[in-house]
Amino acid sequence: MKAMIISVSSALLKGSATNTNAAFLSRELIALGFDITESIMIHDDEEKLLEVLKKAEAQVEFIVLVGGLGPDDNDIVKTTLAKHLDLDLVLDEETQNRIMTYHKNSSLVMPKNNQLQALTLLGSTPLVNVTGLALGMFHQTDTHHYLLLPGPADELVPMFIENTRPLLLEKLTDKPCVSNHIIRLYGPTMAQAHQELGEIATTVENPIIQIYPADIEIEVQLTARADTEEDCHQLIAKAEKQIEERLGEYIIGYGTENLPNIVRQLLKENKLKLTAAESLTGGAFLSEVSSLFEAGLILDGGIVTYSEVTKHDALGVTKKTIETHGVVSAECAFEMAEKSLKMFDADIAVSLSGVAGPSSLENEIPGTVWVGIAVKDQKTFARKFHFGYKRNLNRRHSVWSAFNMVRKHILEEEIEEVVYKK
Amino acid sequence: MKAMIISVSSALLKGSATNTNAAFLSRELIALGFDITESIMIHDDEEKLLEVLKKAEAQVEFIVLVGGLGPDDNDIVKTTLAKHLDLDLVLDEETQNRIMTYHKNSSLVMPKNNQLQALTLLGSTPLVNVTGLALGMFHQTDTHHYLLLPGPADELVPMFIENTRPLLLEKLTDKPCVSNHIIRLYGPTMAQAHQELGEIATTVENPIIQIYPADIEIEVQLTARADTEEDCHQLIAKAEKQIEERLGEYIIGYGTENLPNIVRQLLKENKLKLTAAESLTGGAFLSEVSSLFEAGLILDGGIVTYSEVTKHDALGVTKKTIETHGVVSAECAFEMAEKSLKMFDADIAVSLSGVAGPSSLENEIPGTVWVGIAVKDQKTFARKFHFGYKRNLNRRHSVWSAFNMVRKHILEEEIEEVVYKK
Repeated sequence: MKAMIISVSSALLKGSATNTNAAFLSRELIALGFDITESIMIHDDEEKLLEVLKKAEAQVEFIVLVGGLGPDDNDIVKTTLAKHLDLDLVLDEETQNRIMTYHKNSSLVMPKNNQLQALTLLGSTPLVNVTGLALGMFHQTDTHHYLLLPGPADELVPMFIENTRPLLLEKLTDKPCVSNHIIRLYGPTMAQAHQELGEIATTVENPIIQIYPADIEIEVQLTARADTEEDCHQLIAKAEKQIEERLGEYIIGYGTENLPNIVRQLLKENKLKLTAAESLTGGAFLSEVSSLFEAGLILDGGIVTYSEVTKHDALGVTKKTIETHGVVSAECAFEMAEKSLKMFDADIAVSLSGVAGPSSLENEIPGTVWVGIAVKDQKTFARKFHFGYKRNLNRRHSVWSAFNMVRKHILEEEIEEVVYKK
Repeated sequence: MKAMIISVSSALLKGSATNTNAAFLSRELIALGFDITESIMIHDDEEKLLEVLKKAEAQVEFIVLVGGLGPDDNDIVKTTLAKHLDLDLVLDEETQNRIMTYHKNSSLVMPKNNQLQALTLLGSTPLVNVTGLALGMFHQTDTHHYLLLPGPADELVPMFIENTRPLLLEKLTDKPCVSNHIIRLYGPTMAQAHQELGEIATTVENPIIQIYPADIEIEVQLTARADTEEDCHQLIAKAEKQIEERLGEYIIGYGTENLPNIVRQLLKENKLKLTAAESLTGGAFLSEVSSLFEAGLILDGGIVTYSEVTKHDALGVTKKTIETHGVVSAECAFEMAEKSLKMFDADIAVSLSGVAGPSSLENEIPGTVWVGIAVKDQKTFARKFHFGYKRNLNRRHSVWSAFNMVRKHILEEEIEEVVYKK
């Protein structure tokens, strides 16, 4: 079914905000089998919206309207659509109660207009907003389907996942069961992923296979539709096998949680504490760890030794090691990891030393990085990486490679090109 | 003059990428006095583009086309516009030479199609691409103006700033001089900024005043147009004074560089080295410092003491301080800053200790943070902040507040609510 996304927001046209909703909705709607023909941003303007609605109705069956559901004068989507479809707006009592309770509990005076957020198109299905006040809704006529979603992404995303997706599946797709599966990759570029999986993604129709960048990871999303749950799972398992054959070595996990969260879970399950001694990444690894949920369970502390002097003075790396092997070396990575393991009394210590760039260091080109791992009562090891020439991307890949080495170590997977301390 | 932005990219409609170009172009074009009526994303499809071009020409004078200038089969923008305007495509020799030189120097085999990137519409003004190969262009007919820009943001942004903006000024605006001035704020919310500056922004027509979020800072951009440079500067100075009267206390600097970069510059000029002892921010401050250009000039190292134990064991905060005052205290912040100043032999040390959330700590609610500053041979001081309930936003505001205290300290500006160590 053809669909069009219309974002009604002067803020977007002023450049005050980036339209992340459009990208999110495109992904989600394609996964459900819709074909997005166009995505438009217009001002909060009734006349313009009426014009665009007419055009959209001539081209597609399914119209998604984003934004303009709030209590302000410029929130014109519901009133305009009501006018356009010649329908009344009626009060959704549940939402009205939620709005009143919210204002009562927060001891805020409720602006009179706030009740506008509880108005719904007569005959539409309300979509509860679990993180905000404006009500979403889904409306069907003989010829078209209209989906109205709130503009703030932190309201739109949960409303879509929790309430909208199940409703669209029930009303607009021919198969009763849908199953979603995400395979996470770290390592290949998007171009490589497309090259390896492109043919599968275009020839396999069910599940729909989508390949997306997710920060520096890649998400391969499989969406199967079938008559039964079991059929869905079989379809997914078959496609997954093909993907594993091509890119199995890069799979770091499944689902929406990224690599740091996957490692967090492994550390927590195994009751392990992590620490780090960082040079070129200068705190980026520790910052990532400490930003995780329940970070206190897996982190006590760590150290940043950016200069040669602090590697010796603050951490205790021997001058001999630095003089003999340099700081971009396995030996320095071994010692940094072992010293920090003791200093912070951890179970696993990561060290990162290398050349972020743009300048070279010790004759090593930018992107050359040693990641070391020290584990209580085990042999210390390290691996040399070559990333690229972009300073901040090198830092980011260093951090991710370190997390990936910790993941493989805990899961006892083979880590390629490892050098062990003698 | 009315303008429409048409992004030609199936990747956008698939949700593989977010349309950051549209937001950037909107800001820039509004600053030049254009009125953006609509921003559209369509597939790489000739028929669709022809349909949208006709519609756009009926509505606006200035049409911006983004993407579709590369060498692939789906890069259809130039051929479609040539067809639509009944114009030939001709070779831009300078660009052809650049493409050939690039492939020669990189020892890559040049795909035959690559020369397509050097084709330009007959009679148009070529726009040099300093960071990529595809040529941009500006074309005028009796009734319309067409601007063609490449899709990758790292090509579009420099092409716009360096080549496109001066050209548009010359061709499409009535005043020969344009001057741009950015005032950076940290502290107020977007709502507060709009409340304080909204009236000025709507009543003052020249300069155009735009208020944008820039990460957790706010940019107030003033764009004046006049007959002479001096007139421009006078117009800006007058508006700036009004803004200073309202929000002067929040101004952290001017231009495109954010707070960490402003502090970097101050440290560099004063030949000062920074260090940090981080608790709740867990490396986020140090990571920000080390990610800066020439970080080695201002950073040797720092420490993350996330747990109570490591504050004592690894950093040397006395047990008495922790037992008597707790870790969310001025006393702990003083000691953390002083100990790290010594440990890393720095000129200024920042300490961050507080409650990121979601749980409370030592009866302090999430968002309660002490930032301490120790300076060689000066009295140590600290300030208590109350942010909000969102863990990662609290961490981010803690880091920014610490940078701001360092900035004010170096500039000898007054820091509010400071507590000095006795």
